[in-house]
This record gives sequence, C-alpha cells and structure tokens, in this order.
Amino acid sequence: MKIVLIGAGNVGYHLGRKLHGVGKDVVQVFSRRRNKAILLAELINANAVSSFNKIDLSADLIILAIHDDGIKDVGNKLAQIGCENKLVVHTSGATPLTIFANTGLKRYGIFYPLQTFSISKEPKFETIPFCVDANSRKDLDKLKNLALKISPNVNYINDEQRAIIHVAAVFVNNFTNHLFHIAQDILTEKNISLELLKPLINETIEKIETNDPIKMQTGPAIRRDEETIKRHLKLLNKNSDYRKIYQILTKSIQNVNN
Amino acid sequence: MKIVLIGAGNVGYHLGRKLHGVGKDVVQVFSRRRNKAILLAELINANAVSSFNKIDLSADLIILAIHDDGIKDVGNKLAQIGCENKLVVHTSGATPLTIFANTGLKRYGIFYPLQTFSISKEPKFETIPFCVDANSRKDLDKLKNLALKISPNVNYINDEQRAIIHVAAVFVNNFTNHLFHIAQDILTEKNISLELLKPLINETIEKIETNDPIKMQTGPAIRRDEETIKRHLKLLNKNSDYRKIYQILTKSIQNVNN
Repeated sequence: MKIVLIGAGNVGYHLGRKLHGVGKDVVQVFSRRRNKAILLAELINANAVSSFNKIDLSADLIILAIHDDGIKDVGNKLAQIGCENKLVVHTSGATPLTIFANTGLKRYGIFYPLQTFSISKEPKFETIPFCVDANSRKDLDKLKNLALKISPNVNYINDEQRAIIHVAAVFVNNFTNHLFHIAQDILTEKNISLELLKPLINETIEKIETNDPIKMQTGPAIRRDEETIKRHLKLLNKNSDYRKIYQILTKSIQNVNN
Repeated sequence: MKIVLIGAGNVGYHLGRKLHGVGKDVVQVFSRRRNKAILLAELINANAVSSFNKIDLSADLIILAIHDDGIKDVGNKLAQIGCENKLVVHTSGATPLTIFANTGLKRYGIFYPLQTFSISKEPKFETIPFCVDANSRKDLDKLKNLALKISPNVNYINDEQRAIIHVAAVFVNNFTNHLFHIAQDILTEKNISLELLKPLINETIEKIETNDPIKMQTGPAIRRDEETIKRHLKLLNKNSDYRKIYQILTKSIQNVNN
C-alpha cells in the first residue's frame, strides 16, 4: 500500500512518522510550505512535493492532514489531477464524510486520531482512539486494518457521532486547558505557582478513571454555599470573562444536580 | 502532642487516619453524627465523642475538619468550654484565619490540605500540598512540623493567598469535573462512552506538566474557526447552559490570546 500524505503540520508530522514506523510505505509528503514537507519527508524516507501535479498517481491511499477549511478544495484538486479512484481520507474530527461528496472523488473516508498533537510532544499512539469511516464497506475495512497497525483502539464512528465527539473534545481539552490557564493567571498575581495545584489537577483526573464525573462533583456550587460563591466572585472582579465563566459553570452544576 | 479531631467527614476521615498512621496521638474524634465518630475513632484507637463538654481538655491541638459555616460557632464553643489556650486550627481553603479572631480563642491557625477528598478513594498524602498559617510564629512552626510528618510539600500561605488558591482550585477541580460531565452527557445521547475521550483527557493534563497552559491552547476558539464554532453551538442547542459555557469560554480564550 503506497500512501501519499498531504500536510506536514502537527497531525501529519506525527502520523507520517508513525505510519513509517509500523512499516507503511509513505511515498510522498505534500506541503505548500516546502521546508516542512522536506523536514518530514527526510525523516520517513519519502519524497517532498509542493505542487499537486507532482502527486504520485500510483498511490493507493491519500491522507489529508490539513486544516478543515482546505479539505474540500484539496478533494476537488485530487479529483481533477486523476485521483478520482484513489481512496482519499481526512483526519479531522470536525468535518463530515460528505465533504467529499461533490468533489468528483469516488472513494473517500475518515481516519481521525482522537488526540491533541504538538510537534514537541511525542504522542503515545498505542493509546489513541482512531475513529474511521468510509463511503464503502471495503474501504472502511481497509482503514480499520491500517488503524489497527497503530493502535488497538479503533472505532467505526459516523458523521453524527464524530460531530458530537468533537464538541466533547473541545470541552475536555480546549476548555479544560483554558480553566487551567485562568487558575494560573489569578495565582500568578499573588505570586503563587500553578505547581501548587497540580496534585489537585491529577486527582481530578484520577477520580474519573473509575467514577462518573457527576458523582465526583464537589465544591461551593453543588453545596450551594452562597457565601463562598459571593467571595469568589468578588475576587474575580477584575476580569469579567472569568466572572461570567464562574457564574455560568456554577449555575450549570446546580441545574444538573437539581 | 495530643490531638482532638472535630469532624469525621471526607477530610476528617482521611486526615485522622493519616495522623494516626504517622504516629500522632489522636485522642478523640468528635462528630455530632455519633456513628461517624465511632467508625473513625475505632480505626485510629481514639475515643468517639458527640458533645462539647466531653472534649479532652488535656489536648494540645484541636483540628476542625468541618463545614466552613460551622467553624466560627465551634471556635466560640471551644473558647467557652475552656480551650481558649489550646491551639485550634481549621482545614478549610475558603475560610480566613481571622474567623477565629473574636471567638475568645487565643491561639489559632490553619492546616489546609490542598486536595479533594472522597471517603472511597485513598489520598496520596505524600503529594498533597499543605497550606499552613497561625496567629503566632511559634504555632506556625508547630503546624509546619506536623504537616511535614505527612507531606514534604508544606507552604506558609496567608489569607489573601489562600483565598485565591481556593478560587483557582474551584476552576481546576470543580469546574473541570463539570466539563467532563458535560462531555459525558452529550456523548451518552449518541451512545458513545466517555472512555473514548480519556486518552485526550490524560494528554491534556500531561501537556501542562511541563508547559504553561496558555502555550498548549488549541481548538476552534484560538484558531477563530467560526464555521466549527457555529456548528458546535448548533449541536448544543438543547441545553442553554452548555451553549452559554461554550460561548463564554470561547470568547475568553480569544480575549486572552488577543
């Protein structure tokens, strides 16, 4: 199976190296930023390309690890240059399978690793859930088998499910991370390091390993400790976003536990 | 050093057992709920008491592991029954040292383990930061030394600092846990388990082990990917609290990263 990887950003960089690592033949890395393409291509013994008419038409699978808003365009271009019968997949949690429907491509799918990637941090692929989908049973099986080379955690997930998974991922990753930032921000003002709260952060996660979050809820909101809530809001006076976040999360905790 | 422990809830239960475990002499466990007092007292070779006039007046230290709104009352009662020269401390992050100022007590302090406790989960005390304070240098040293028997992470923290630590703890623990609940809630509706997101949750925490959260921020908010944000808000249509949480957190991420 010859693979062309389009995109050499966070996802492309790690996925490309992993595919190479498990013995898959990534023949080309495409990126409009030529030096990014070269950097990754050299690591995985592939060729770097930066224009669509150089894409290897003998490839079996083309993986788009690119921004959501570029997927449709690239799908169109691939169909135009003669890839209409290749299996083309994207790696996005936010983009439906049907994005490819009117591109001219006949075989398409999704190969979505449910994780947050940074260049500087090596992902543990063996723990990453892969969410796969395709517009044919045969290609779905192909994608499942490919994902299983990388991780045992492979799931068939349709558009509707993946859309909600992506929202949920925003809550547990993006928003959680922002709450950590807020904590750091207000602590720094009093010369306190976020380090002091890391054991608490770790415990917060450990508790939901084996318990539903709703059963682990503690704090002034669920206790309806209005005195403490009032004091906290006063301490957040300087930042109206932080105040609003405190208020709506408190209200939501109370509504959920009514 | 003879210790009387007032309160046999989550904090009292674990702290009492730990103090006993490191060889401290907890002579009495007080709880208005007699069976709770007995349960803990039996585990740590102490006497269970349920009325204030039975409190051992030979104690050196009285620890209040009780609800915030009971601290002042209990302080008053302890002064009345002849404990005015004992060192009396509370374990609350939300309550200032000055709560004891007009109780009649002469020596008081704070012995606050910065962690969330549940009866069912054994805390790792050796990782828990202890925040201590007292109204005299001598008693502060006493509390520091006692805390050091339990954890190497002992910090002198004044009222102003502890108040902000407590708000920050609400963000990283209570609110984070609620975000996990929201994720589980919206996933369950589509028959998806929160298990699928646990690798992502773990990675979210791992990333801030060595990086500031603000540098780890990803997602549609910081990318200003308005299309995805719109789609997500549509998916959250059924729950107005969840929608508002999504909106204000998105806005706050954008304002912080302006």
